Amino acid sequence: MSGIAFKDGDWIEETRKAWALNDRGALLGDGLIETMRVMRGRVLRFDRHMERLSRSCADLGLPGPKDPEGIAGLIAELVAENALKDAVVRLTLTAGPGPRGLDRPDEIIPSLALSAAPFTPPPAQYRLALSEIRRSPASIAARYKTLSYMDNLQARRQARGAGADMALLLDTRGNLSGGDCANLFWTRGEDVFTPDLRCGVLAGTVRAEILDSIPVEAGNYEPGELVQADAVFVTNAAIGAVPVVSLDGVPLGSGDLPPRIAALFA
Amino acid sequence: MSGIAFKDGDWIEETRKAWALNDRGALLGDGLIETMRVMRGRVLRFDRHMERLSRSCADLGLPGPKDPEGIAGLIAELVAENALKDAVVRLTLTAGPGPRGLDRPDEIIPSLALSAAPFTPPPAQYRLALSEIRRSPASIAARYKTLSYMDNLQARRQARGAGADMALLLDTRGNLSGGDCANLFWTRGEDVFTPDLRCGVLAGTVRAEILDSIPVEAGNYEPGELVQADAVFVTNAAIGAVPVVSLDGVPLGSGDLPPRIAALFA
Repeated sequence: MSGIAFKDGDWIEETRKAWALNDRGALLGDGLIETMRVMRGRVLRFDRHMERLSRSCADLGLPGPKDPEGIAGLIAELVAENALKDAVVRLTLTAGPGPRGLDRPDEIIPSLALSAAPFTPPPAQYRLALSEIRRSPASIAARYKTLSYMDNLQARRQARGAGADMALLLDTRGNLSGGDCANLFWTRGEDVFTPDLRCGVLAGTVRAEILDSIPVEAGNYEPGELVQADAVFVTNAAIGAVPVVSLDGVPLGSGDLPPRIAALFA
Repeated sequence: MSGIAFKDGDWIEETRKAWALNDRGALLGDGLIETMRVMRGRVLRFDRHMERLSRSCADLGLPGPKDPEGIAGLIAELVAENALKDAVVRLTLTAGPGPRGLDRPDEIIPSLALSAAPFTPPPAQYRLALSEIRRSPASIAARYKTLSYMDNLQARRQARGAGADMALLLDTRGNLSGGDCANLFWTRGEDVFTPDLRCGVLAGTVRAEILDSIPVEAGNYEPGELVQADAVFVTNAAIGAVPVVSLDGVPLGSGDLPPRIAALFA
């Protein structure tokens, strides 16, 4: 059964034709995404999502949503329309219609969609596969949550082909970057580590919450660091934090979340 | 006035809603592009475009168009519907609808669109601006003509802001890669040079035709090479070959196409 989605003022089935043929989101990946977890009717980290969206729009020259204050109400209506309490909501903001070519039109008329899927618990543990795709530290698509997701999609596809759940990507210098749709953390003794944003890393909302909650060292790290780790885990808005148990079949970490991380998601 | 486009069997105005809300092309940049030049009703390098599309589909795990043999006829109909003889036609093939997340559905039902714009002659000469965005040599989005175009879009936007016509991008090692939507060539004496495909370069159809026609050295080159060049030019299917006259305001080359290149596009 298809869900009900919001698109520029209308409520429609999500299988319906909704994006203009000449929408730059559809033609060129020219837009932004926020993926939000709704738990018992409440959007987790809503302010962080809206702040990131607003900052990303400013950085990438996109007008923000026409009515940002109205988005919380739209999400409440969306989950109610779909009879959901625990859901994952996706916000898509595109640069809207435009003529042929890379240059945006003089007047950008952005397009906004919201869709919801029932929350399904993630796997208890993730098996990662190291991707041959490497992220440029100087790539916009790597550092912002844009519609231009092809590198992550292909990394995931290859990881699935290798029997894993998620791809692990390095940057072009060989430093750890993160999962195909998740930030990466690990611990060793009392210390918590994560790749620096300058390793082609998206500033995830859960990542930001962890960094605001406990001391974390963000830096340049080689994949070998993971072998030495006591615990390895990945984070994103939809899954929270989930332990990683292997990389290319080699066991990693304890398979449990460190208690002080688990406590943040209790 | 809006053009007439083809979308999965229908002929529609290109401003019409045509992509499903949950099409992976619109949501994740999961699809491919071919941009073709139509000259006096004839599609230039049609076989090269179809071969690249077919090869890209195979590499990226996408089913090709349902009726590849029918595409030539559709393009003829498209340019006739739009009363065009000289046109730029864009083919868009997406992975079609899918559920939430990176994983493609078990059965991919691709979506195909064709749209046409009147051919407008490119500038006689291009001014380039060096982008801070750098391409990963191990990026799918850099090497295939996918919908995930954000890095090129932002490079163009910054180049326009700097008063230039097109961005020049390097790879993450600092080697020349190419224009934001074009391949790069230069000459010195009798020698012709272009960045190797392993510098985050798309295998352009015009690039391929030049390489099949005259001796060209494809390799790893630093931007300083352009300062030493007798002529610099960029190529793509829509513009053919056009001279470059400056990089960040510094004059480059003669401003003319070398005669043996011009002869290929006569």
